[in-house]
Amino acid sequence: MPVRLGILGCGNVGASLVKIILEGQSLIESQTGEVLEIAAIAVRDLSADRPVWVPRDLLTDDPFAVVTDPTVDIIVEVMGGYDPAKPLIEEALRSKKSVVTANKSLLSDYGEEISQLARSQGRDVFFEAAVAGGIPLIRSLKVSLAAERVRRVTGIVNGTTNYILTRMSEDGVSYSDALSSAQELGYAEADPVADVEGFDASAKAAILASIAFGRNVMLQDVSREGITGITLDDFAFAKRHGYTLKLLAICEWIESEGDSEGKISVRVHPAMVSLTHPLASVRDAFNAVFVEGDAVGELMFYGRGAGGLPTASAVLGDVIDAAHNLRFGSTERHMARP
Amino acid sequence: MPVRLGILGCGNVGASLVKIILEGQSLIESQTGEVLEIAAIAVRDLSADRPVWVPRDLLTDDPFAVVTDPTVDIIVEVMGGYDPAKPLIEEALRSKKSVVTANKSLLSDYGEEISQLARSQGRDVFFEAAVAGGIPLIRSLKVSLAAERVRRVTGIVNGTTNYILTRMSEDGVSYSDALSSAQELGYAEADPVADVEGFDASAKAAILASIAFGRNVMLQDVSREGITGITLDDFAFAKRHGYTLKLLAICEWIESEGDSEGKISVRVHPAMVSLTHPLASVRDAFNAVFVEGDAVGELMFYGRGAGGLPTASAVLGDVIDAAHNLRFGSTERHMARP
Repeated sequence: MPVRLGILGCGNVGASLVKIILEGQSLIESQTGEVLEIAAIAVRDLSADRPVWVPRDLLTDDPFAVVTDPTVDIIVEVMGGYDPAKPLIEEALRSKKSVVTANKSLLSDYGEEISQLARSQGRDVFFEAAVAGGIPLIRSLKVSLAAERVRRVTGIVNGTTNYILTRMSEDGVSYSDALSSAQELGYAEADPVADVEGFDASAKAAILASIAFGRNVMLQDVSREGITGITLDDFAFAKRHGYTLKLLAICEWIESEGDSEGKISVRVHPAMVSLTHPLASVRDAFNAVFVEGDAVGELMFYGRGAGGLPTASAVLGDVIDAAHNLRFGSTERHMARP
Repeated sequence: MPVRLGILGCGNVGASLVKIILEGQSLIESQTGEVLEIAAIAVRDLSADRPVWVPRDLLTDDPFAVVTDPTVDIIVEVMGGYDPAKPLIEEALRSKKSVVTANKSLLSDYGEEISQLARSQGRDVFFEAAVAGGIPLIRSLKVSLAAERVRRVTGIVNGTTNYILTRMSEDGVSYSDALSSAQELGYAEADPVADVEGFDASAKAAILASIAFGRNVMLQDVSREGITGITLDDFAFAKRHGYTLKLLAICEWIESEGDSEGKISVRVHPAMVSLTHPLASVRDAFNAVFVEGDAVGELMFYGRGAGGLPTASAVLGDVIDAAHNLRFGSTERHMARP
C-alpha cells in the first residue's frame, strides 16, 4: 500500500520535493521499502508558473480539504508563516495524519504546543528541515544523543550571514559590498533584515535549545545581535590574534548549585572563533552545528543549510521515518519534558 | 518496566557504558522515558581489576547464560573479535533480544548475515559505535538519508593515523617520531599495523559502503594502502600546491551505462586534500565523514572516533532506540537489498 502525501506549498522546497519523489520513486522503494504517492499539492494560486515536473492534476487551492482527506497519510507543510500553516497542521494532526514541516518560525513560537497535540494524537511531527536545511541534526540530537547530557550547542545556522562574513574575511570587501554580492547570488533577500539582524538564526537557536535540553525555549527567550556592525577592522584585529568572526547561535546549559535542572542561556551574536576550531573553516553559505556533550565530547554537523534540494532531502528523510512509524503504529521518541 | 541489559565485555567501552548508565539514570529517564537496568556483565576473568563503579555482583563469566536469560531485553556486545562474539550475538537474536554492538571486524565480515538473522527474528542490530565512535553517522545514513542517492562517502575514520599525519604536517616530525608520540599517548598500539596499514579503516569503509549503497560490501572488497610510506617531503610538496595529506576511506558509487545498479569502488589510501576542504581541518585523533548526495549536496560529520566515553555514548543512543522499538514492536528501518 503506498503512503499518500499531501503537500502544502509548492515554492522552491515543495517543488524540489515533488521532483525528487517523482524522479526517485524506484530508488526510494528499493532503499527504504516505502512506496510514496503524492495525493495532492495545495497552492495559493492555481494559475501561477510552476516547474514542468509538477503534475497539474494534483494541484488544489483548498489546503483544508487536503489535511482532512481520509486517504492522505502524511502532511508535508512547506508553505511557511503562521496562518494558515498553524491551523492546517493542527487539523492534520487531529485527522490522525503525521506531519513533516520545515517551518522554523512556527516551531520557534508554537513548537511545544504542536508537539503536545501530536503526542495526544499518537502521531509524529518531524522538522529536520527547519534547522540547518539538509543536515541530519534534529534526529541525531533526538535519537542518537537522546541520553546524552548536552552542555553546549554552537551553530552557524544562517547561510546568508556566513556568506557575507566569508567574503569580508577572505576578499577584504566591506559589509555593504558583501551584502550586495549575497543579494545578487540570491542568498540574501532585498530586505535582508531577518538574516543580518539575527532573527532567522534566533528562531533556529530556540528550536535547537528546545531539543538539546528538553525545555520549551521560544523565540522571545533568545537574546540577539546581528552582523551589521562588523567592520573589516574587526576581521583584521581577530586575524592578528588567530581568530575569525562568525555569527553564532549559542545554546548553553549552565549547572547551578541546588538546581538539578540547571539554567539555559540561548543567544545569537557575532563571536571570535579560533582559526583552529572546526567552525572557523565553515565557509560561504554552509551551515554547521557544534555539539558538546558529557560523554560524546565534541561533535560537528556540517552541510547546506538552505536551498530547495537539500531542504527537500531532509523533508523526505522525515517522510520515510513517519511512514515507517505509521506502518508499525510507533511514533517518534518523545522526550519527557520537565 | 525497566529495560534489562546484558553487557558482554567490560573493557574501556563496557566500563564507560556502565558508568554513564549508573550515573545518568535519572537524566536518561527524564530525557528518554526509558528506565535502563543492567542485568549482567559478562567478563572473561572475574578476578581482573575493574573500575570501582562496576558492580561486582553483576559480573559473570558465563556470557551464554546472559544472552539466553529470558529476563534480558537487549544485549550489548563490546567484547570485540569473532569468537565468541559472533555465536553470542546469533544466540541473542534467536532468543528474541535486540543487539547493540561496536564490533567493526565482525560487521565488516558478517554484517549482512547478522542483519538477515535480525530481520528474520524481528529484532534490531544497531552498530552506531562501530564506525567513527561517538559520531551519529550510521543512523543518519540509514534513517535521515534513507531515500538519498549517495554518490560518495569520504572519511577520516582512523584517529591514530590522523594524529600521526597531523603531527607530521604541523610539527614537521618524521613518521617514526609521530608514531612514537601516538604510542606514548595511547592512540597507537605497541604493534600499530592494524592502524597504520589501513586495516582498521578498511573494515569501517566496508561497513560505510554497505549502509550508504545498500550493498553487501566486505573487508575483502576494500583495496588498501597505509601511511607508512609518507614522508615530510610529501607534506612539503602538498602544502606548496595548497593541499595536505590524509588517510581517506573512499566509498564511491559509479553510474554505469545500462546497469541501473551501478558499480561501487571502496578503498583506503593516503590522498591529497585541498586546504579549503572541510576534511583538511580535521586534526589530531578526530574523525570525520564527508557525504555527497544528489539532493542533500555535501554533508560532514565530525567528532571523536574512539575512546571509552564517546563510544559508550553511541552505544547508549542505540540502546535507547532499541528499547523504544521493543516497546512499540517496531524495528529499525531495514533497507531492502537488491
